[in-house]
Amino acid sequence: MRKVIYGAACSLDGFIAGSDGSVDWLHHSADVEDIMAEYWKATDTLVMGRKTWEVASAAPPPSDASAFSGITSYVFSRTLKTIDRPGVRLVSNDAGAFVRDLKRQKGKNIIVFGGGDFARSLFEADVIDEVGLNVHPVLLGSGVPLFLDAGHRVKLALTECRPIHGGCVLLTYRVKHARNPGAAGTRKSS
Amino acid sequence: MRKVIYGAACSLDGFIAGSDGSVDWLHHSADVEDIMAEYWKATDTLVMGRKTWEVASAAPPPSDASAFSGITSYVFSRTLKTIDRPGVRLVSNDAGAFVRDLKRQKGKNIIVFGGGDFARSLFEADVIDEVGLNVHPVLLGSGVPLFLDAGHRVKLALTECRPIHGGCVLLTYRVKHARNPGAAGTRKSS
Repeated sequence: MRKVIYGAACSLDGFIAGSDGSVDWLHHSADVEDIMAEYWKATDTLVMGRKTWEVASAAPPPSDASAFSGITSYVFSRTLKTIDRPGVRLVSNDAGAFVRDLKRQKGKNIIVFGGGDFARSLFEADVIDEVGLNVHPVLLGSGVPLFLDAGHRVKLALTECRPIHGGCVLLTYRVKHARNPGAAGTRKSS
Repeated sequence: MRKVIYGAACSLDGFIAGSDGSVDWLHHSADVEDIMAEYWKATDTLVMGRKTWEVASAAPPPSDASAFSGITSYVFSRTLKTIDRPGVRLVSNDAGAFVRDLKRQKGKNIIVFGGGDFARSLFEADVIDEVGLNVHPVLLGSGVPLFLDAGHRVKLALTECRPIHGGCVLLTYRVKHARNPGAAGTRKSS
């Protein structure tokens, strides 16, 4: 079954952006490019909340647009009325139930893009299978949180741990689902 | 100069205890014992806030009491009147200034024991030299925070990164001080 991956670059104190949205502390390197290239190869779907969409859609298109070719993005919002962008679909349904259904369809991996609020809803629904972090060597003190309280403990299994360029650390975990993967389908959204 | 080390076992989402103070998720192993034995060898001083002291002093004495022989503990509190325990001293002065002064005295390393509130005051004063974490593979969701906002970015340099038993990860960082170590002495507490 395709995996749902929550991947992010974060500070050691668990922020994905500073309180002013700043990401000037992010370290770019060939290591990160290699890792991201592998991620993109295995991915055909992005899911994100409205706030992340607003940041992402305001940014200039990536210089390497091919990275996004063949990618379908789903933006979850109950307030947006329409999104007019090729490959981007607006969803007003419950994110957990929708992503659980996406997992059952054939396809490559699904990446959870951006902030803690949206990721929390997917942890609550227990549909996230993997957490991949690029932990940066800085304490920001405040900002956009990587993790918010999902209402239950989420047990993880470490699958990868290695230092990469710039004093960053790559940590990958498999999520130990709270119930049998089959049973998770009945949770909350039935 | 002796180092001030903020060391803790924490969850991946940055808590050192659950919201009810629970630490049942902590994983004990021979790896941890070896690491702690090395820490104790190089340490002769503990510093902590009142809350950590109240938890620590309520716990039964460690089975291996020799681990604490030769260790002086300083408990920082403006509300406690007295502490009657051998090797434990109560300090009502500003923690940052006191620890900065301790660093100038001859001795082994100084370990910052326990929670985010007290550690924050030492990060604010820029007296912490090293951060050593044993990151556990769990998201607790809420609890006692490892880091609180020190009011400024704290830049770090990764010095060690390795997986240890139980899916835990040992991360050690050197703190890149905001000012020259000498200049830090004039900060806040002059």
